[in-house]
Amino acid sequence: MAATDTAKIADVSPVERLHALVAADMVATDKLIHERMGSTVLLIPDLSRHLIDSGGKRLRPLLTLAAAHMGGYRGLGHVRLAAAVEFIHTATLLHDDVVDESSLRRGKVSANIVWGNKPSVLVGDFLFSRAFQLMVETGSLTVLDILAGASAIIAEGEVMQLKSANNLGVTEEDYLRVVSAKTAALFAAAAESGAVISEQSEERIAAMRDYGQNLGIAFQLVDDALDYSGRQALMGKSVGDDFREAKVTLPIILAYARANDAARKFWTRAIETGPQGEADLDRAITLVEETGAISETMARARRYAADAKRALDVLPAGEIRAVLCDIADFCVERAY
Amino acid sequence: MAATDTAKIADVSPVERLHALVAADMVATDKLIHERMGSTVLLIPDLSRHLIDSGGKRLRPLLTLAAAHMGGYRGLGHVRLAAAVEFIHTATLLHDDVVDESSLRRGKVSANIVWGNKPSVLVGDFLFSRAFQLMVETGSLTVLDILAGASAIIAEGEVMQLKSANNLGVTEEDYLRVVSAKTAALFAAAAESGAVISEQSEERIAAMRDYGQNLGIAFQLVDDALDYSGRQALMGKSVGDDFREAKVTLPIILAYARANDAARKFWTRAIETGPQGEADLDRAITLVEETGAISETMARARRYAADAKRALDVLPAGEIRAVLCDIADFCVERAY
Repeated sequence: MAATDTAKIADVSPVERLHALVAADMVATDKLIHERMGSTVLLIPDLSRHLIDSGGKRLRPLLTLAAAHMGGYRGLGHVRLAAAVEFIHTATLLHDDVVDESSLRRGKVSANIVWGNKPSVLVGDFLFSRAFQLMVETGSLTVLDILAGASAIIAEGEVMQLKSANNLGVTEEDYLRVVSAKTAALFAAAAESGAVISEQSEERIAAMRDYGQNLGIAFQLVDDALDYSGRQALMGKSVGDDFREAKVTLPIILAYARANDAARKFWTRAIETGPQGEADLDRAITLVEETGAISETMARARRYAADAKRALDVLPAGEIRAVLCDIADFCVERAY
Repeated sequence: MAATDTAKIADVSPVERLHALVAADMVATDKLIHERMGSTVLLIPDLSRHLIDSGGKRLRPLLTLAAAHMGGYRGLGHVRLAAAVEFIHTATLLHDDVVDESSLRRGKVSANIVWGNKPSVLVGDFLFSRAFQLMVETGSLTVLDILAGASAIIAEGEVMQLKSANNLGVTEEDYLRVVSAKTAALFAAAAESGAVISEQSEERIAAMRDYGQNLGIAFQLVDDALDYSGRQALMGKSVGDDFREAKVTLPIILAYARANDAARKFWTRAIETGPQGEADLDRAITLVEETGAISETMARARRYAADAKRALDVLPAGEIRAVLCDIADFCVERAY
């Protein structure tokens, strides 16, 4: 193999490698997603397509398919399940953007801005219902139980998160509870349910759940660090969304704990009392960097990624396990 | 029996009589509802309680319990199912009030006004998830299928309804599609799933579904007529909500079709172009009454109520069938 080829392969992210490993199933999943978001009420597919075709990585359904593949699953249930997982994710994004009053999602104007809040809430409800219809078609009450439970936990996490706005009293423990619920629960359920549908052992099911849970936490920690990073702009995402919404994430929790008097006054005004000025985001970025809050956040993310990889130990060695390990690393490395 | 006793019994509404017939199960349903709306995130039970304890008639879960009783069901599944049906209903009310920007619900300030839109959206999602968890506990994929399907149809109906605002081009057919979806689908699914869980014949299951569907349409037609009625104020509901939101319901569709030039100009300004003035609601009420639009809406409601009663013919005669018949009549009579 020529050196250029090696370089080319090294450039392929592990998420893309996982796509390739389950390519036929991912194509079937995408086809099913597009079929089932259909409705004679055309606003529903129009709005759904805006988000679903906006270049999301399909990371959650990929976990479902990967877990089912590891169990040697033969059938159609995993594709239905993967589509259901993506619908739950899409529904939560639609509702999130209404709740956060966001204007940008995956580098595009968000649905709530294009169509307004009302259709975003209702199309979210539609996709959520479609997710449960797809799960019913798998015939597995166990996966229904896992994903209904995860959906309730996600909603709890989102409600908890409302209290993190304008509140410097949020502790690291509060923050981790929110992240575990609003983000990691769906990663965990996506991976677990793929293992369940392929009838793997309890030990392996638990391993996939642990992998998903830890990967999800690492993923969110990195996301929250990236919100204070210039690199984010290069990825088509806006920087400083959390800051502008006065959302207290780990970078602020750590920076505030290490702040001197002047910095404490700054955080109190910017996050709790207002108003925020134009130069405030730059100052916030400087403070989270100078206090080491960003590198500390990334260090925690690395620990969760390591836990995710360790969970995979009980699973059979092979290409899929290797790429799931690499995804855990990649999820942290994407920040650099 | 003394005459006063007879008068007293006649005063008891058929909904209250159905409550009495399934009293123990309704107590169990209410207990389960209160248990399952619990969460360590206290805003969730607080907000849920505001709506769930606000004196709703529990008509939908009553239909589920009644259908299961007619099938002689012995078990706990129907109580779980009834609680699930009420949670789906509550979730849609929470989202509805956000979408409609309502300020009053069942005579109380609505949750979106007390806590804001964000918690209303998210607690709705939570209750919706809890509904599916309860259904999973019944162990019946068939009821899950029925209620997941109904939930998707409800969301489609709500999205369709968005187009009815500020639009005098809405036809009676459009209107009936919305009503069938947003209201009748849950009545139908509530009744049908109670028959399914008690393992009744296909014929009886279809009969309960038809009953629910027709009752639901009648119910919504009467609701839409009452929105132009002074009696509504006596029931603790605000009058003219639909008019102020410029929502085109059957009374307006019929009144507009029969309007003279002056009245057409009025409807165009009040509904399509704006602005609405203070005296406009009174004029709208006069117009829907004078053109016979209200009595025509009520006549249609009576026809659907008659269809609902006819659907019950194949079911075994007895107290429950009789009271379901009376509920269909009562749903229309409550308007007088």
